Amino acid sequence: MSAATPAPTDPAARYAAFRALHHADRPLMLPNAWDHASAAALAARGFAAIGTTSLGVAVAGGKPDAAGATRDETVALARGLAKLPVLVTVDIEGGFSTDPDSVGALAAELSAAGIAGLNIEDGRPDGSLTDLARQVDLIAAIKAAAPAMFVNARTDAYWLSGAHGDPLAETLHRTAAFVEAGADGLFVPSLPDDETIAAVVKSTDAPLNVLYAQGRHTYARLAELGVARISCGSLLFRAALHSAVELAAAIVAGTDTSGAGSGVPSYAEALGLADAFDEA
Amino acid sequence: MSAATPAPTDPAARYAAFRALHHADRPLMLPNAWDHASAAALAARGFAAIGTTSLGVAVAGGKPDAAGATRDETVALARGLAKLPVLVTVDIEGGFSTDPDSVGALAAELSAAGIAGLNIEDGRPDGSLTDLARQVDLIAAIKAAAPAMFVNARTDAYWLSGAHGDPLAETLHRTAAFVEAGADGLFVPSLPDDETIAAVVKSTDAPLNVLYAQGRHTYARLAELGVARISCGSLLFRAALHSAVELAAAIVAGTDTSGAGSGVPSYAEALGLADAFDEA
Repeated sequence: MSAATPAPTDPAARYAAFRALHHADRPLMLPNAWDHASAAALAARGFAAIGTTSLGVAVAGGKPDAAGATRDETVALARGLAKLPVLVTVDIEGGFSTDPDSVGALAAELSAAGIAGLNIEDGRPDGSLTDLARQVDLIAAIKAAAPAMFVNARTDAYWLSGAHGDPLAETLHRTAAFVEAGADGLFVPSLPDDETIAAVVKSTDAPLNVLYAQGRHTYARLAELGVARISCGSLLFRAALHSAVELAAAIVAGTDTSGAGSGVPSYAEALGLADAFDEA
Repeated sequence: MSAATPAPTDPAARYAAFRALHHADRPLMLPNAWDHASAAALAARGFAAIGTTSLGVAVAGGKPDAAGATRDETVALARGLAKLPVLVTVDIEGGFSTDPDSVGALAAELSAAGIAGLNIEDGRPDGSLTDLARQVDLIAAIKAAAPAMFVNARTDAYWLSGAHGDPLAETLHRTAAFVEAGADGLFVPSLPDDETIAAVVKSTDAPLNVLYAQGRHTYARLAELGVARISCGSLLFRAALHSAVELAAAIVAGTDTSGAGSGVPSYAEALGLADAFDEA
């Protein structure tokens, strides 16, 4: 973490700033927001960059994840988050379209709105992986339409590992093609162990993004392994829900022992989180 | 808490069921949701009824609270929450209008959508209280347009106590007028102590709703005082944000010791929360 500073308004400067965070001494810690409030709270806590979680955005809106159903919600949220004094990268699932022109246009729209990066994934709602040539076309279309967009190309070869034979071989085959198409970074969720993480890091010059798993990963160990970016996926969203529901249950049970010093933001502090989004 | 059961679809039965929860042996614990996900998670935890928090709904959408800016968000969320197998009451701030016909139409729309109750408040964005006669007209208009809507009439005589001389006298004056206009319940946030809570309970036959304050209230003590309904306002929303932000910070600091048994819902469990909102 570092103190939040305004994100550059010039696309090339924004790209350079975000890219630099992926080639630094320590991994970029990227917490994922699901709405304006969570994003503003993370920015206020001092994270230099924040992402979004497609699961959180979808379920917060009562919609399914990774089903291409949340394009409007994703763009609306991105437009708001671009007003925050942090670099923002947006999870666009599979691109909300199979048409390269449409996905390129989305990337250009997000870049014009002030977004620094995006994630695009090759897993499909039916549990299969997209045809690699088509995925490469999408990545190339994004970089052509929005050269200053940091493209974090995700393969779900492990996440959906029932879909094919050798997930490591499939991963390396795909990530090499993604980099060739212009991807700036690679995201491989669900890598099973340190050895596999190290193998993927070693396979490429592109920065590797690992999905943090509670109880299995530590920031320090992932740093040792050469991971460049550690993101939270839906974890913070899920932890937030858990915390809210358990607090409600604790109140009924009489076991809420939180006092004034619990650190929970006050009404006024929470209200202040919306100030960054003022239209004025 | 009790096991979640489907909310009655017949408005009169829904009204009777929700009203009965305010006249039971124990206070109704009403947790407040701010989006579809938090509402579904609270319903899954077994709460019989849930409310919404206007602060949460506003800030989650990047908008100010209590400024009448979130009518569309509030109605859209209410339509979703009405699909959950719980009774739902919606915070409509001051009604999003000063026109009784408009506020009545909103109540009728929410009732037709399956909503059991609403909160309407007399505090205004400038920190003053609405003219009592006008507030009474709004409450009467709601009950005329939506007789099966449980109206929880809120006075901010304590919440905005700088606005007038004697907040207890102002509260009792207003709550009596609200009941006369047809209010089903009364909500007085920020009552300063047990003695004042007891005084308000004693002043009326209508069920009193108290806003739970961490470190100051317990469910058991509020029950002893005769409180009928305990709501959380924005607390769960604020606690959820705090939990998410501190978890992200703990990951960087290497102090996240949560393991698999932390109780945080899995990806699949979180995804499943959206099932209740399927259009199908």
